[in-house]
Amino acid sequence: MNSIVIHNGTIITMNSALDIIENGMVCIKNDELVKIDSLESDSPIPEAETIIDAKGGIIMPGLVNSHTHLPMSIFRGLADDLPLSVWLNEHMFAAESKYIAPESVRIGTLLSCAEMLLAGTTTCCDGYFYEDHAAAAMNETGMRAILAQGVIDFPAPGVPDPKGNIDNAEAFIQKWQNISPLITPSIFCHSPYTCSEATLKKAKDLANTEAVLFQIHAAETKDEYVRIQTGHQTTPIGYLDRIGIIDKNTLLVHAVWLDDNDINTIAARGAGVSHNPESNMKLASGIAPVPSLLKAGVTVGLGTDGCASNNNLDLISEMDTAAKLHKVNALDPTLMDAASILKLATIQGARTLGLEAVIGSLEIGKKADVIIIDAHKPHLVPVYNPVSHMVYAAQGSDVRDVIVNGRLLVQNRKLLTIDIEDIMEKVIKLSKTIKK
Amino acid sequence: MNSIVIHNGTIITMNSALDIIENGMVCIKNDELVKIDSLESDSPIPEAETIIDAKGGIIMPGLVNSHTHLPMSIFRGLADDLPLSVWLNEHMFAAESKYIAPESVRIGTLLSCAEMLLAGTTTCCDGYFYEDHAAAAMNETGMRAILAQGVIDFPAPGVPDPKGNIDNAEAFIQKWQNISPLITPSIFCHSPYTCSEATLKKAKDLANTEAVLFQIHAAETKDEYVRIQTGHQTTPIGYLDRIGIIDKNTLLVHAVWLDDNDINTIAARGAGVSHNPESNMKLASGIAPVPSLLKAGVTVGLGTDGCASNNNLDLISEMDTAAKLHKVNALDPTLMDAASILKLATIQGARTLGLEAVIGSLEIGKKADVIIIDAHKPHLVPVYNPVSHMVYAAQGSDVRDVIVNGRLLVQNRKLLTIDIEDIMEKVIKLSKTIKK
Repeated sequence: MNSIVIHNGTIITMNSALDIIENGMVCIKNDELVKIDSLESDSPIPEAETIIDAKGGIIMPGLVNSHTHLPMSIFRGLADDLPLSVWLNEHMFAAESKYIAPESVRIGTLLSCAEMLLAGTTTCCDGYFYEDHAAAAMNETGMRAILAQGVIDFPAPGVPDPKGNIDNAEAFIQKWQNISPLITPSIFCHSPYTCSEATLKKAKDLANTEAVLFQIHAAETKDEYVRIQTGHQTTPIGYLDRIGIIDKNTLLVHAVWLDDNDINTIAARGAGVSHNPESNMKLASGIAPVPSLLKAGVTVGLGTDGCASNNNLDLISEMDTAAKLHKVNALDPTLMDAASILKLATIQGARTLGLEAVIGSLEIGKKADVIIIDAHKPHLVPVYNPVSHMVYAAQGSDVRDVIVNGRLLVQNRKLLTIDIEDIMEKVIKLSKTIKK
Repeated sequence: MNSIVIHNGTIITMNSALDIIENGMVCIKNDELVKIDSLESDSPIPEAETIIDAKGGIIMPGLVNSHTHLPMSIFRGLADDLPLSVWLNEHMFAAESKYIAPESVRIGTLLSCAEMLLAGTTTCCDGYFYEDHAAAAMNETGMRAILAQGVIDFPAPGVPDPKGNIDNAEAFIQKWQNISPLITPSIFCHSPYTCSEATLKKAKDLANTEAVLFQIHAAETKDEYVRIQTGHQTTPIGYLDRIGIIDKNTLLVHAVWLDDNDINTIAARGAGVSHNPESNMKLASGIAPVPSLLKAGVTVGLGTDGCASNNNLDLISEMDTAAKLHKVNALDPTLMDAASILKLATIQGARTLGLEAVIGSLEIGKKADVIIIDAHKPHLVPVYNPVSHMVYAAQGSDVRDVIVNGRLLVQNRKLLTIDIEDIMEKVIKLSKTIKK
């Protein structure tokens, strides 16, 4: 028997044909999608332990947020409208050194998971400190995640001596390799200007040995570009490529300051890019050349970045911003159409994480990460094109139900695996100390 | 006795000092704000017919949407990712000529009002055809609005012979001058390239005679800029100024393609500008030089434009986009900080409509247009800065209660003056015909 059957909705499959199925039905058996089809209203609904009526809404794959710093939700709105260097060095690093600890990482992660689930994100790709505690919290929620211990050549929360940063990351990877099918460990080097060449190479070696994703913020700001040019006589991407960092298991986050050579390098190596337009806009880092990256064949995912630089984890509003930003930047309204944008947030995002065979579309045999959108709201009426609606009209709060790996995590906007009242109370209490 | 007392929230006043009041209380008597103060938790709540507990949320002035085409909600998502000329000429004008009629204007307007109210907008400034029917619908809702009959030198819905366009607008103004204190009539000339010089001058004369706001789309696209340069040997703003259109009762919508002279002209004449970043992005029209306009002393409001070019009427997400767009465009993250942006959507928006003495801030003696934001949600926790929260973290759906002119129109997200189920059913039915 089916575990879950969802019926009475329009399915956006995000399969390679981008099929849309009216009067759609999705059958889930345990953690897997076993049937995706239309069901006429007079046909019987297949038997299932749980039957979910989408009530004419949209049924689609869960969204994939390819770049987060989950615990930073505790700093949401702490410092805004500042240059990245001031924001990072004077505010974030200072706040982190003082307030990032196992418990704040735990509650910040759970707050972020709650926010993401309630806005339709079922998978995220994270990098932070005390990531072991982030992973433990994530493991409670039932969400899917790639989680990385951060590596930086300064004293960091939980890693007072940077000499231990790679060992620390190694221990994290080894611990989390087999704990849950939903959690995949990874390693995150902060950037080419905060990690030495030796650190970057050691971290990449570790990623290769353990066969995990290597993540790095790269070519984010003009300042970084100038620093790397001065220190290494090449671009950030040129430098990272020269030292062997860029390959198909690398996720380059931001990738704003790229020249044509850089784009060709990224394409040739098969690396993925996480595009974070709202963070890049808010910190005035620049506009990543996503249309050119896509044209060159690079796989691009969409990310929100951490809460402190966005200030939300809402991938639905990120889609809207991404679509509009690239159109106005190129003065071409046909660029980055709604379907291209929805791909970034689903199947392409999954591909940047090496999960394209598992998630990112509704196809038989894939894991059941499914969201249902309540379209019976004034701002979603009428529906001419459900894909356009998801990008240009929907809000995070339109997500009604969320299933990850066949398990219902949000039902009628109620979180089933997170005690959100308890978490909000704890974060508010901590924020009062931070505010002082 | 007070009609309404709101307590237990943080007040963003948007007064000239931008005062924030913790433990705030707002007292309303009939249609007016009579007290705005803090109230300690052990103090008694003043007597009132209705007492509203904001439950620790945010209490602020209702938002002012300075540019809409209300009935176009029936075309939401009908045509996306197209150049403005194709979108307008092949899709919108075609759909309008076929489907815009008194009843579609009525239901489209009511759908738009529902969406706006549920996202915290209490005043809008509209221009469309069959505006008499839009006004009648608006009048049912209790919202505040500036409403204009559209003028264009082509056959238009309800005005088959363009020779009658000014008379039609005059009749609209005269009819609606005294029907409701909430509805102020106005006139809207479509653009300097779709209205002749004679039409523009006659319309402006009418606006002067009737003492109403004159609205016009101006300097929206590069194409318009080139056409006006070719036809009139000056910029769109230069042309409109030469023929006497631009003064303090003029609202220039979009104002994207401006040179320094244009900015100085707008400032010198005291005209207002409606900035519609999401529409300008989606249609790839360009980025209005808002920081330069503000520096020159121009009053700028924020607008969503019609649903068909956005595809929503959510001024809260428009604020977020506006803040981020100007930062990345200038590569300066300190530009357009959260407070500046919130001014555009409240007090400055009111000023562009000539309503700054009436609405746009919570100050004693102003009309009671007040919204309450539910901040007890994962994506709004913690709160370090309520102004930053409204711009960077809040969603339209966080608006809980809406009061216009002292009357509760939305309570716990329920619309009290619009039968939204009936309207959605009618719009969905119409959309099925349009889809064919």
